[in-house]
Amino acid sequence: MIRDFSERLIVQEVSPRDGLQIEPSWVETADKIALIDELSLAGFSRIEGGSFVSPKAIPALRDGEAVFRGIRRQSGVIYVALVPNLKGAERALAAGADELNLVMSASQTHNRANMRMSCEASLAAFDTVLERVRGESVLLNASIATTFGCPFEGAIDEDRVVQIVDTYLEMGMQGITLADTTGMANPRQVQRLVKRVLSRLPAAALTLHFHNTRGLGLCNVLAAYEAGARRFDAAVGGLGGCPFAPGASGNICTEDLVNLCDQMGIETGIDLPGLLAISRRLPALLGHELPGQVAKAGRNCDLHPIPDFSLG
Amino acid sequence: MIRDFSERLIVQEVSPRDGLQIEPSWVETADKIALIDELSLAGFSRIEGGSFVSPKAIPALRDGEAVFRGIRRQSGVIYVALVPNLKGAERALAAGADELNLVMSASQTHNRANMRMSCEASLAAFDTVLERVRGESVLLNASIATTFGCPFEGAIDEDRVVQIVDTYLEMGMQGITLADTTGMANPRQVQRLVKRVLSRLPAAALTLHFHNTRGLGLCNVLAAYEAGARRFDAAVGGLGGCPFAPGASGNICTEDLVNLCDQMGIETGIDLPGLLAISRRLPALLGHELPGQVAKAGRNCDLHPIPDFSLG
Repeated sequence: MIRDFSERLIVQEVSPRDGLQIEPSWVETADKIALIDELSLAGFSRIEGGSFVSPKAIPALRDGEAVFRGIRRQSGVIYVALVPNLKGAERALAAGADELNLVMSASQTHNRANMRMSCEASLAAFDTVLERVRGESVLLNASIATTFGCPFEGAIDEDRVVQIVDTYLEMGMQGITLADTTGMANPRQVQRLVKRVLSRLPAAALTLHFHNTRGLGLCNVLAAYEAGARRFDAAVGGLGGCPFAPGASGNICTEDLVNLCDQMGIETGIDLPGLLAISRRLPALLGHELPGQVAKAGRNCDLHPIPDFSLG
Repeated sequence: MIRDFSERLIVQEVSPRDGLQIEPSWVETADKIALIDELSLAGFSRIEGGSFVSPKAIPALRDGEAVFRGIRRQSGVIYVALVPNLKGAERALAAGADELNLVMSASQTHNRANMRMSCEASLAAFDTVLERVRGESVLLNASIATTFGCPFEGAIDEDRVVQIVDTYLEMGMQGITLADTTGMANPRQVQRLVKRVLSRLPAAALTLHFHNTRGLGLCNVLAAYEAGARRFDAAVGGLGGCPFAPGASGNICTEDLVNLCDQMGIETGIDLPGLLAISRRLPALLGHELPGQVAKAGRNCDLHPIPDFSLG
């Protein structure tokens, strides 16, 4: 069977970073390493393993160095670290990250709340990171948080997002992520913006990052996929969340996305049974249930015993 | 502004039937009536108010007559009753149902488990109902459960589904529902089947009934909508569930669907704030949380106060 790899959907697993950063209980460094090591064997080509931000801002991920140094790297897997500035970049490089993910919000208000600086200050900080890594083999990705809406400002001007994409490309970023930080995107908006952005960079350089805050995460993936996008962030179990929407879902759930792709005949390269086994161990590790559905319902092919009709 | 009503999406609210039937705690008749009365004012044109099946089979809905007699009917709203056979039809007619919804599974095994009879026996029972209501003003809808997959048999032959549609139409059913009883449908399958079925009956006569068991409910709605379907079942709060997937979601959530439509500019005629108020009262009534997301996260336009940056 000849496969059309242009149809392939690439999942970047972000649970160790965007998933664990909001967990209220401390997850031991060894457990973080074990999670990443299990994910490395499930078929992912990209895993966001942690972030190198101020330990005061995100104490849950304060052991980034130890995690990156402790994981058993698999060849073919790119291990990504989120960094906000030069200091974070230095730490991530020293810890052996393959790719740095720089984050700025399209919304000034959200960037001030999240990064404690203006967008202009974020871009200036990115410049110092670019300067520092020149000549190194590390990859650079830049994310645009609140691309599809801001919990403080509301709607975000699409022209502003496209302008930031252009700025990132001029700066020399190799990859760009459009992030729906608080789950405000809808499929029509996603299609419109993805088409505009894909006129500026190849699909292999664009990642979509959706949250399922309002139940639309997988709808938005399909809309973006139809518009030509091929790379998506997701978190096993649907880990993650949003401080502004307690009780609402977090990142789109990796195994629910992989199940969707399997059912639709879209290749991901990810082992669904292996992923389900990882997901089903998470509630014990974290002490609470997770929003992912397929881990609870099973796959379509997990049939149930036929009832004994003689009892009826 | 001129609206294109051919684009309008009709939501049939099924929480009083498919939602409440699986609730472990008894919901008082007065509370059921109050729920339907609130829903009647939220803009729905169709509400499935209960079922007239054996009280032994579904004790949670054993008060169907009292519920139908107690509700305050709004003009323009069609109140539907699910019935399995002639006895149920007699009870529903006496209680004043505007439409009878007859249910048979595409899967023989599921029909035996659910209805305690073969598909052929179900069709024969439907014939006696059709005979009985001839000349009455009541409407008849017929559902095909397990259209997209059976938890016992697995995949369902699409030709078999289309054959049942043809049989229903020949019998004189005015509406047909394709039901994804245990959430096994995927968007490509939905598009393929909806297109085939819409070559046989108008969109106004076809309802799609999706469960969110594996997180794909709203993806399947959009796929069906794109293929031309316009009528969808949903339950406020995402009430409902599946005995074969404990912990998994139930029906697609009405307010999440209406929010999706509002965001995409698809007219539904349903008042989202009113619906959210109904949904947010349900956990207290039922004693547990519900899977609906927008009731927890709020609408996109429910903005959050800007943090005090001077503290940072």
